[in-house]
Amino acid sequence: MNPGSLRVPRGFRFAGVAAGIKRSGRPDLGLVEVAPGATAAAVFTSNRVKAAPLEVGRQHLERSRGRLRTVIVNSGNANCATGTAGMRAAERTCREVAKQIGVEAREVFPASTGVIGLRLPVERILAAVSPLRTALSASPAAAQRFARAIMTTDTRPKLASARFDCGSARGSLLGIAKGAGMIHPRLTLKHATMLVYLFTDVAASPAQLARLLRGACARTFNRISVDGDTSTNDTVLLVASGARGQRVRRGADERNLAAALEAVCASLAKQIVSDGEGVRHVVELRVEGARTGAEAERVARSIANSPLVKTAWAGADPNWGRILAAVGMSGVPIDPRRVDVYFGPIQVCRGGAARPFNESAAHRYLSRREFQVRVRLGRGRAPASFWTCDLTEGYIQTNAEYRT
Amino acid sequence: MNPGSLRVPRGFRFAGVAAGIKRSGRPDLGLVEVAPGATAAAVFTSNRVKAAPLEVGRQHLERSRGRLRTVIVNSGNANCATGTAGMRAAERTCREVAKQIGVEAREVFPASTGVIGLRLPVERILAAVSPLRTALSASPAAAQRFARAIMTTDTRPKLASARFDCGSARGSLLGIAKGAGMIHPRLTLKHATMLVYLFTDVAASPAQLARLLRGACARTFNRISVDGDTSTNDTVLLVASGARGQRVRRGADERNLAAALEAVCASLAKQIVSDGEGVRHVVELRVEGARTGAEAERVARSIANSPLVKTAWAGADPNWGRILAAVGMSGVPIDPRRVDVYFGPIQVCRGGAARPFNESAAHRYLSRREFQVRVRLGRGRAPASFWTCDLTEGYIQTNAEYRT
Repeated sequence: MNPGSLRVPRGFRFAGVAAGIKRSGRPDLGLVEVAPGATAAAVFTSNRVKAAPLEVGRQHLERSRGRLRTVIVNSGNANCATGTAGMRAAERTCREVAKQIGVEAREVFPASTGVIGLRLPVERILAAVSPLRTALSASPAAAQRFARAIMTTDTRPKLASARFDCGSARGSLLGIAKGAGMIHPRLTLKHATMLVYLFTDVAASPAQLARLLRGACARTFNRISVDGDTSTNDTVLLVASGARGQRVRRGADERNLAAALEAVCASLAKQIVSDGEGVRHVVELRVEGARTGAEAERVARSIANSPLVKTAWAGADPNWGRILAAVGMSGVPIDPRRVDVYFGPIQVCRGGAARPFNESAAHRYLSRREFQVRVRLGRGRAPASFWTCDLTEGYIQTNAEYRT
Repeated sequence: MNPGSLRVPRGFRFAGVAAGIKRSGRPDLGLVEVAPGATAAAVFTSNRVKAAPLEVGRQHLERSRGRLRTVIVNSGNANCATGTAGMRAAERTCREVAKQIGVEAREVFPASTGVIGLRLPVERILAAVSPLRTALSASPAAAQRFARAIMTTDTRPKLASARFDCGSARGSLLGIAKGAGMIHPRLTLKHATMLVYLFTDVAASPAQLARLLRGACARTFNRISVDGDTSTNDTVLLVASGARGQRVRRGADERNLAAALEAVCASLAKQIVSDGEGVRHVVELRVEGARTGAEAERVARSIANSPLVKTAWAGADPNWGRILAAVGMSGVPIDPRRVDVYFGPIQVCRGGAARPFNESAAHRYLSRREFQVRVRLGRGRAPASFWTCDLTEGYIQTNAEYRT
């Protein structure tokens, strides 16, 4: 996103620096300072293995009753599978950051992303807090620097913003995300670690935020997959600074904020897939004719996570048989004789059997950067949309060489 | 397997020829002729989408009450998602083969493997039956030719044999398999199409064979995965010719045959994984300390099907954190604080946290062609062993270019 078109909501200041956590020397520590009185809600990975900062963040939001003043995020180290030492490291980071900024430790929300099982270099983080504070700014460029600091295998920062009516005022919403592999979020509702921060300047209760956040995640982040691996560190945080001086009321205000949230989350979700490790093709899976939305989603997940389907896409190969096979192994009791498959406008399978089609036209369609695959199940009326990608040599290279 | 060490059980003759189904011109049609009086049992994929020959084979065994005289298998075309025309093609093949050989159509067991959604070239198959019959032989070399004719992306034929005591006689068991991708059998009990043929010369009832076959599959073919994709065509067939003149009785005979079956199936299962598309490393996953065997297997499957775990293996990277994350997303309610992970003799994770280890020693261990990963869950006493492999550029290349 062009920094020029980015709107930073009131009540937030951002910074990102290189603290020496990444060997590469790239930016790896981000800070957000939030105005007094802000409220927040978060959702986390449903992986049974959860990184230390997720547990600490959850406890802090609970103890502060949804009050939040600071977000601190490091990349390069996931602080996961680090035992009680990892918990102490996350807690100590929050305590020291709180002290330097002048807030309560429970008002600090930590996150980490990177390699699992390594000790968090707390001293490096703490040494960088002072330069971070100095760099804090409400400018779009500062939000971009924060977005870069939380990147791991991402090739570009991910931001999206929207405006919405709230009473007599205009609220503003800014979303910042990272994630490129280990992406299959199933927020507790799961995902490469996916970190998402959503900032708005209207005022709302933590309960309101939690409800709106769950709804937006269910229709966006929980409907994407890069590789089918659900991270130990996925976190989505929504913070309302209230700095606009306008409270979100039930009814139109909430619906407007919900719509803005869904638009920003959908943009970030698609940016994550589009920047997925080694991705050459971004695919919209549209499953229709299921009995329920959950059933449609289950079929979409089975297709999205099939290595054979994903490698066929990498070769722009209209091999729809692999899609049909993935539908058949989804666990949904489909009747193959009722299944139709389309590549964009080209129907390739009707009633579970081959429908003659122009191979080279289909190959051309699948050679696009972005295309649609539509599957009709013939069981009912419920649809689901799901964003995913192909599986290429680039994914293998990224992940076979990630650490060594 | 060295043809010299291969023993062909009595009552079976084999042939394999090139019928022109594969564009490459390689062998693509195999025939097995079985002595009169033989019995059989089969298990098929649990994918809801099942290829036409599976349905025809199932019906034939039902109508013949487990009597079988001929096995006909083509590679290069899966005859799947071919609608009623596909069913008619499979039936016509059986009928014509039966006529030429002089048996009943219901005594012919068909199978197909290859691309999904293409019309089966029945005329080419039928034109090759006469040369196939001429080539029939009980020699180990003929069994090898049959094994080659059923290959798709396999780089080598897969055979295994065993002997066992049956009453006062010695029974003989020969197994022939194909499969290299789309391998995640869950035989109804799933998987690249896997075709397995097991031949023995003792006599047994179809019900006995079915029971023994299900037991052997559960502990072997259902515990392997190359890519997590379950095929529409997986089939395992066990045929007893009775030509040894010795009946398998309850008790010691059955136990001996069961042991021989499990040994042959285990060998073939491991040969399939070892010849998996692009495979550089063969991995034995050993999950221990689960509450039930099914739970242990579920955790093993989650690890075996994680692209991040598999790509780390491709790089011989001791990135155990990805293994822990895969355990956490398995759906089994594990307590991460009780999980231990070992690479062979090297413990890398204790109680869900990093245990200091020699990185270069671990990297050396993981550089072997074959290694073991052991995970202890600390929930109970049930174990499961599972064979799988790494995910490499070779897999991508094979499958992005398979058809186009």
